[in-house]
Amino acid sequence: MLGVCLLGCGGMTPLPERRLSSLLLKHNGKMILVDCGEGTQIGIKKLGWGFKSIEAVCLTHYHADHVAGLPGFLLTLGNSDRTEPLTIFGPPPLELVVRALTVIAPQLPYDIKLVELSEQRESYEKIGELSIKAMPMEHRIPCLAYSFELSRAGKFDVAAAESLGIPKEYWNPLQKGKTIEYKGRTLVPELFMGPPREGLKVTYSTDCRPTETLLEFCRNSDLLICEGMYADDRLLEKAKERKHMIFSEAANLALNSGAKELWLTHFSPSLKNPQDYISIPQSIFPNTVIGEELLTKELNFKDK
Amino acid sequence: MLGVCLLGCGGMTPLPERRLSSLLLKHNGKMILVDCGEGTQIGIKKLGWGFKSIEAVCLTHYHADHVAGLPGFLLTLGNSDRTEPLTIFGPPPLELVVRALTVIAPQLPYDIKLVELSEQRESYEKIGELSIKAMPMEHRIPCLAYSFELSRAGKFDVAAAESLGIPKEYWNPLQKGKTIEYKGRTLVPELFMGPPREGLKVTYSTDCRPTETLLEFCRNSDLLICEGMYADDRLLEKAKERKHMIFSEAANLALNSGAKELWLTHFSPSLKNPQDYISIPQSIFPNTVIGEELLTKELNFKDK
Repeated sequence: MLGVCLLGCGGMTPLPERRLSSLLLKHNGKMILVDCGEGTQIGIKKLGWGFKSIEAVCLTHYHADHVAGLPGFLLTLGNSDRTEPLTIFGPPPLELVVRALTVIAPQLPYDIKLVELSEQRESYEKIGELSIKAMPMEHRIPCLAYSFELSRAGKFDVAAAESLGIPKEYWNPLQKGKTIEYKGRTLVPELFMGPPREGLKVTYSTDCRPTETLLEFCRNSDLLICEGMYADDRLLEKAKERKHMIFSEAANLALNSGAKELWLTHFSPSLKNPQDYISIPQSIFPNTVIGEELLTKELNFKDK
Repeated sequence: MLGVCLLGCGGMTPLPERRLSSLLLKHNGKMILVDCGEGTQIGIKKLGWGFKSIEAVCLTHYHADHVAGLPGFLLTLGNSDRTEPLTIFGPPPLELVVRALTVIAPQLPYDIKLVELSEQRESYEKIGELSIKAMPMEHRIPCLAYSFELSRAGKFDVAAAESLGIPKEYWNPLQKGKTIEYKGRTLVPELFMGPPREGLKVTYSTDCRPTETLLEFCRNSDLLICEGMYADDRLLEKAKERKHMIFSEAANLALNSGAKELWLTHFSPSLKNPQDYISIPQSIFPNTVIGEELLTKELNFKDK
């Protein structure tokens, strides 16, 4: 239903076998790319979901490890026969950054729509059925965390529809939220729809400290993808100084925000084998996964 | 003596197993990088020659496949404890491009010295003992071919030095070109040095057509590294239109310019297995090698 793929899991600088952090989301034929460090287009090629349906790019901030792959990505997207506009979301100064990077990617065969998001307060956007929220975080430069949510309507009350004698051809429009006229009566969908059911939520947060704001922002995520720049608790002071997180902080964030699953990503190049440290976050939040290239998951609504 | 490594051999867009074209040269502890497409820093890491001694970057032109890796490279160079200035050579508008790309790589711990080379005529520069020449080529935007040359002094005439009774402690200064005073006589080095001996020359040329200018520029290269965007002769018109070359054109260039060896590089992403076409250039110029990632060679002077 909602496809999620971690294209890379490196922070700061890539390693030969570790691309930089970025994420691809897919729902109903539309894709959203989150961050675009050097080498992101290689990850997309390896994954095989294609380029053409990428509708939007969400940039967290403008450190090179999160955005240097943009010119190459934009050119390769242009070679995929795309002609529809591409939307790029990001904090200030979005226009300055995109204009600078596209000096080496001129004459794209599609328009770019820039949507600069606030560095002061939460922003709300939508791509297809996916709601995008962005929240300013505490980093060394303006930086956003993103969440992607799919809402789900309530159940259609078949018994109510039958008891009122509503023919079946009207059920589907009602389920889709349409008001109908039937035998001189106006029937609003609320009459037949139960309360909204639990949807899906994926939160992506890198390059920030685990603040109260972030805790609230990622509350009840089905999947929390969070940076873990350093593994060892003894590196906490370094993490604080550089505005990053250690594994145990990310695990506590997952635990305290009610996440169902945690993927760690954005590993320091000095952290050669993050898997060696899995016991640290799992002792706090058991459903932790150490991110790796092309780690993929399909999230589905809980019941039919 | 002169180390040469092809870091990548792709043109236009990288493939999962093919990085974009760039080259690293090494002589006497100093290195020069030629072009810096997305992923170049990964090639340098895999090679293992390190970053810190890279003294200069030579950019051929500003299509993204030749320059998008610059911000990431500059940051990683900064993490290598480098504090000495880095020189970047390139055609106009060098300052505009580097200023744009470093929007996402601010606060580097070393200075960047920009040397804009002419798009009208040949330029001459020097890094360590390597002479750099750059020549404007025919492409869709300003584009330079580069050659890198090591000259070699003549042989020291031991018999002449002995017959004049010059003590051995004076030989080395004379060999290094110094004039000395001995027993009231002024001795110039030319008295004892034979004619300059054959040096070494590497030429790098991508994204251009095989013009007369290029033929003269790469004359007598020990190693000619030349683009071969397309393999098949039937793609000649496409190559002409896009200002690229086919394999047989590069092979004829090597043959007619008196090259000793030819490396083909900058393959179209549509050319999955360039090795399948090796017979085409080898039928014209037998000492042709199909470029591949980390293809490395050490060039040495011909005799001791």
